[in-house]
Amino acid sequence: MIRLLGLDGDDTLWHSESHFAVTEESLAELLSPYADPDDLRRRMLETERRNLALFGYGVKGFTLSMIETAIEVSGGRVSVAEIQRIIDHGKGLLTHPVELLEGVSEVVDALDGRVRLVIVTKGDLFHQESKVAASGLAERVEGIEIVAEKDEATYQRVLGRYGVDAEEFLMVGNSVRSDVAPVLAIGGWAAHVPYHVTWELEVAEPDVDHDRFTALDSLRDVPALLDRLAAH
Amino acid sequence: MIRLLGLDGDDTLWHSESHFAVTEESLAELLSPYADPDDLRRRMLETERRNLALFGYGVKGFTLSMIETAIEVSGGRVSVAEIQRIIDHGKGLLTHPVELLEGVSEVVDALDGRVRLVIVTKGDLFHQESKVAASGLAERVEGIEIVAEKDEATYQRVLGRYGVDAEEFLMVGNSVRSDVAPVLAIGGWAAHVPYHVTWELEVAEPDVDHDRFTALDSLRDVPALLDRLAAH
Repeated sequence: MIRLLGLDGDDTLWHSESHFAVTEESLAELLSPYADPDDLRRRMLETERRNLALFGYGVKGFTLSMIETAIEVSGGRVSVAEIQRIIDHGKGLLTHPVELLEGVSEVVDALDGRVRLVIVTKGDLFHQESKVAASGLAERVEGIEIVAEKDEATYQRVLGRYGVDAEEFLMVGNSVRSDVAPVLAIGGWAAHVPYHVTWELEVAEPDVDHDRFTALDSLRDVPALLDRLAAH
Repeated sequence: MIRLLGLDGDDTLWHSESHFAVTEESLAELLSPYADPDDLRRRMLETERRNLALFGYGVKGFTLSMIETAIEVSGGRVSVAEIQRIIDHGKGLLTHPVELLEGVSEVVDALDGRVRLVIVTKGDLFHQESKVAASGLAERVEGIEIVAEKDEATYQRVLGRYGVDAEEFLMVGNSVRSDVAPVLAIGGWAAHVPYHVTWELEVAEPDVDHDRFTALDSLRDVPALLDRLAAH
C-alpha cells in the first residue's frame, strides 16, 4: 500500500532541461568563432562534470561552467562582452517563467486525498523555492523537499521525516539515476516518466525487470499505477 | 521554558564572512588597475544587492557578482585571465576548510540533553550541506535546516516541523536581520552573538529593549542564558 508519493520537480512537474538546452544552443552560437558546436558541447560537459562536486546542481554553477568553458575553448580570446552575455543567459534561466508539463494539474487533483504528496527536487535552494512557489503546487502537496543530491541517504531522510517505510513510498520522476535507482535500492517503488531531453550527467538505464519498477509514458498514468499497486 | 534552540551556521558556529572579506581584498588588488578599493567595494555591494533577488545567498552568486562588478568597474577592460582568477577565488571559498569558532564544540556538549538543538542556516544548499558535514556537528544536533531566507515564514515552518511553539524557541546567531528580528516578530526568543565582520546587506540594529532579546558576548554564554530563561 503506497502512503507517500514523491514527485520530482524539474522535467517531471515543470519544464527545465529544455530551457538549459536552448541556452546551450545560444552558447554554441556565441562561441562559434572559437569552437564548433560538437566540440563545445563535449568541453562544456567536461567542465560541468569537473565542477559538480564543487558547485552542485543548478543555474548558478551552470553559468560559471559556461564562462570557464568559453575561456577554455577560445584559448582566452572570448571577449568580456561575450562573458557578460553568458551571465545574462544564466539570469534568463533564473527568471524563466515556470511552465507545468501537460496534465500535471489534473493528476495532482486526481491524487488529492488518495495519497500523501511530496515534491522531492534537487538544485539551487533559492531557485527551486522560486519555481515551487511559481508552480502553484506548493499548497496542493503536503511537503516540499529541496535536496542537494538524490541518493539513498537523502530518500531515507525524507521517509524518516514523513514517518513512512520504504515499501509504502512511490517516487515518480524523469531521472533514472536520481528518481528511480536510489529509491529501488532502499526498498521503495519507482516509476519513470521520461522527458524528451535528459542532461547527459543524469543518463542511466533503468532496471526494467525490477519488481518495484514501472515505466510510464506520462504522469497521467500515475493514478492507474496506484490502483494496480493497491490491488497487488 | 525553551525546548528548541536554533543555532545559526555561518559566523555563529563556523567562520564565513571573514573568508569573504579576504576574497574581496584579493578582488580589490586584482582590479586595482581599474578602480580604487572604496569605489570597488561600493560597486560590488550594488551588484550584490541588485542580484540578490535572482541569485539568493552563497558563494556561486557572489562569484557571478564579482565578475559582473569587474566588467563594470573596468569598463570592459578586465582581461579574461583576470575573470578566470575571480572564478578561482570563488572556488577557493567553496573549498575552504570549515573552522569552528572558539568554544562551539564545548557549548554544543554543554547543551546536549538540556534542549533540542537545530542548526538553521541559509545559503547555497550544496555548500551549506558540505560545511555542516565538515563541521562535525551534524550528529550532535537533532536537525539541520538549510533555508533560502530567514524570515518569519521560514521560522514558522521550522517550528511546525519540530512541533514547538514560538515561546519555546530560542534562536542564537550573529545576524540581527536574520537570526533576531524575525524570531522576535513571531513571538520567539533571540540572542545576538556578534561576529567581528558583518556583511553590509545583513547589518541591522537590534531592539535592545525587547523583552525576549538578549545580547551575548560569546556563544559560551548560551547555557547561562538558558538557566536565566528557565528561572523566568
